[in-house]
Amino acid sequence: MQPQDFVEELDDLDDEDIDKLPDFLDTEQLTEVMEEADDETRQRLSEHIDDETLLEMFEDMSKDDIVDILGEMEVYRRKRLLNKMKAGDRRIIHTLLQYPDDSAGGIMTTEYIALREDRTCAEALDTIREIGPKTEVIETIYVTDEDRMKKLIGTVDLRDLLSSPRNKKLNEIMDDQVISVEPEVDQEEVAQVVSKYDLQAIPVVSSKGSILGIITVDDIIDVINEEHDEDIAHLGGTSAEEGLDTTLFESVRMRLPWLLVNLCTAFLASFAIKIFEDTIAQVVALSATMTIVSGMGGNAGSQTMSVMIRELATGEVKLSECWKALVKEVLLGAVNGAATGAVTGVAVAIIYGNPFLGVIIFLAMIGNLMVAALFGFLVPLILESLNADPALASSIFITTATDTLGFFIFLGLASAFLPLLK
Amino acid sequence: MQPQDFVEELDDLDDEDIDKLPDFLDTEQLTEVMEEADDETRQRLSEHIDDETLLEMFEDMSKDDIVDILGEMEVYRRKRLLNKMKAGDRRIIHTLLQYPDDSAGGIMTTEYIALREDRTCAEALDTIREIGPKTEVIETIYVTDEDRMKKLIGTVDLRDLLSSPRNKKLNEIMDDQVISVEPEVDQEEVAQVVSKYDLQAIPVVSSKGSILGIITVDDIIDVINEEHDEDIAHLGGTSAEEGLDTTLFESVRMRLPWLLVNLCTAFLASFAIKIFEDTIAQVVALSATMTIVSGMGGNAGSQTMSVMIRELATGEVKLSECWKALVKEVLLGAVNGAATGAVTGVAVAIIYGNPFLGVIIFLAMIGNLMVAALFGFLVPLILESLNADPALASSIFITTATDTLGFFIFLGLASAFLPLLK
Repeated sequence: MQPQDFVEELDDLDDEDIDKLPDFLDTEQLTEVMEEADDETRQRLSEHIDDETLLEMFEDMSKDDIVDILGEMEVYRRKRLLNKMKAGDRRIIHTLLQYPDDSAGGIMTTEYIALREDRTCAEALDTIREIGPKTEVIETIYVTDEDRMKKLIGTVDLRDLLSSPRNKKLNEIMDDQVISVEPEVDQEEVAQVVSKYDLQAIPVVSSKGSILGIITVDDIIDVINEEHDEDIAHLGGTSAEEGLDTTLFESVRMRLPWLLVNLCTAFLASFAIKIFEDTIAQVVALSATMTIVSGMGGNAGSQTMSVMIRELATGEVKLSECWKALVKEVLLGAVNGAATGAVTGVAVAIIYGNPFLGVIIFLAMIGNLMVAALFGFLVPLILESLNADPALASSIFITTATDTLGFFIFLGLASAFLPLLK
Repeated sequence: MQPQDFVEELDDLDDEDIDKLPDFLDTEQLTEVMEEADDETRQRLSEHIDDETLLEMFEDMSKDDIVDILGEMEVYRRKRLLNKMKAGDRRIIHTLLQYPDDSAGGIMTTEYIALREDRTCAEALDTIREIGPKTEVIETIYVTDEDRMKKLIGTVDLRDLLSSPRNKKLNEIMDDQVISVEPEVDQEEVAQVVSKYDLQAIPVVSSKGSILGIITVDDIIDVINEEHDEDIAHLGGTSAEEGLDTTLFESVRMRLPWLLVNLCTAFLASFAIKIFEDTIAQVVALSATMTIVSGMGGNAGSQTMSVMIRELATGEVKLSECWKALVKEVLLGAVNGAATGAVTGVAVAIIYGNPFLGVIIFLAMIGNLMVAALFGFLVPLILESLNADPALASSIFITTATDTLGFFIFLGLASAFLPLLK
């Protein structure tokens, strides 16, 4: 059984059973479970493992996993454990703990092979034989310059190392075009770089060029999945932390605030209707038909928004460079509005036996789908430029616009041509 | 300049400039560009490269890239090119072309190292030195049994190979727990396996156990990004193929059908209102307030839906195992409905000076948020079990339910207690 499958089974256990786990597993098994478990299970488990066993487990774990585990502990225990570690390990882990969880520094590991440029291929192979089993990547050897700064100046592919003469120096076979990131870079940006250049690992380098660690592709996949989860959750107006097993109380805490924000926008739309109550009282058919206009605006706005959110996720979008696309989008709103408006207009004219009502809904639909395009395009752009997550907040503003303005346009037109409608 | 950056610059070129590109680049540069370009650019470029140059480029490309390029060509030229290839290459590519684009077989490559179990470590290292530069992965060597079937029986980590005695046989140091997939498996499922087990590559194996190819992690990242793009696009009611540079005509073609489907559901909601036109004629305040109830139902439904879609994306969800979560979700609807309903009720009672209207909106909000929870939970589950994409179609059904039933509950209650409201 793979440790990942074992960890999956843990999901079905009660908390008390998890608490007892450390008594049933040996240190090696426990290490594998800790490496694969989610944050919550890790935290539970580590509370029931004594300091000595934990330190023994850390020997076989990569530094980034140790940092994650320590990061979730209470400060008191973390300090105690750090003090019991070897000086070298303590220093590395202390440094790693400084970086935010979601930065390149926070997800990097220090288990890589770096060698000075004046080493020979034979020496490099000896080193790989020796420390290879403890590193996360052996396909790439990082080459540093000769002074103490460990400045990263190139990489050597293990393929080239294996096929080069034994006495060649690393700087003769290295590739000096290294793609790297600085430790402060956001993990989402790191993921974009890795997937763009098809890398197996990316080195993290200080502003002065010294190699600090590497980020491996399996951690990058975790980042991509995490961001994906977050986008879907945010588009739906909830939190990525929520799942089927979240408690009722927690779910209320995560979802209610969002619903209350939406309530404000719902009231705004309601006021737009209230202004025209006299008109509705005279032509009651308006109340049944107005929701078609607002609803279709909401749908069209979502379409434009989803295109923009994907564009923003894959790169920078500047209004100055894409105003043509904005013009196209508004034109598209007019075309789709005319098409759906024509269908609706004819249907409404027949159902209510009132051709003028049909014409008004046709015009309102065109107007509201143009509004939807304008807001669907601009709102995500503006939110991104304000460093807010467009996936989280766009829908609120776009729906407010399509609902409020949708009612306003339709009922406004109806009021203007009231004598024809009655 | 990295080829990926060069390809990015191509986006700004006109089609005519792209057509001229083959004249300006040498074969090696052209190969790099073809490997990184998107499907459309690839197709354009290949039309302007003659057969001989293309075949020369294929020598340096991995089989999965060649298959992708051939797959997009007109049948006539594809056959001509295949006939000019070496018999061995032709056979491999012919087989790869059989698999659907989005299956394990469709994204696998045949550039891997497989060796018989009775080979020694020294022989294995010689092979790696020799063919390593032409393979996509060298960190893992695939071990097959001794008969002609090439049945995959284990893997050897290059680390172990480097540190083992030269005369040891591969079957003495191999790991016989191999995680593999069959060629028909959907690429999304492959991505789930790779990210779960943190693999660098996964072997594709026939139903009889023979190794057919491997899928590398960079292709897996592409799959994950592609599926992500599709989810966001589908949630917004559009296609993943759409971007800022899509033409107006194409955008209409992709978005209008979705809007027309939504129009049907909008009419359904409109009919629910039409039934109660007499009631609205008597209490016109209902028309301004009813959209609050339906709108909040839509928002709450999206929240439940987004939790379900994420759960479905990461694994199977069976109703028999999660009915407790459904009960919780409906209860959550009642709690959030009561909270938002109380705020709305008080506000409406004050604004319209009618406490009974406040009570009715309070009750309708609880009812509609429970409906939202029920549909938000069940619709994605049912769609998934019908093999439809929940991200694409859920919102239609959920909005139909929350709009139609939302109006029905609110206006129904209002009709029942009409004397109190007037």
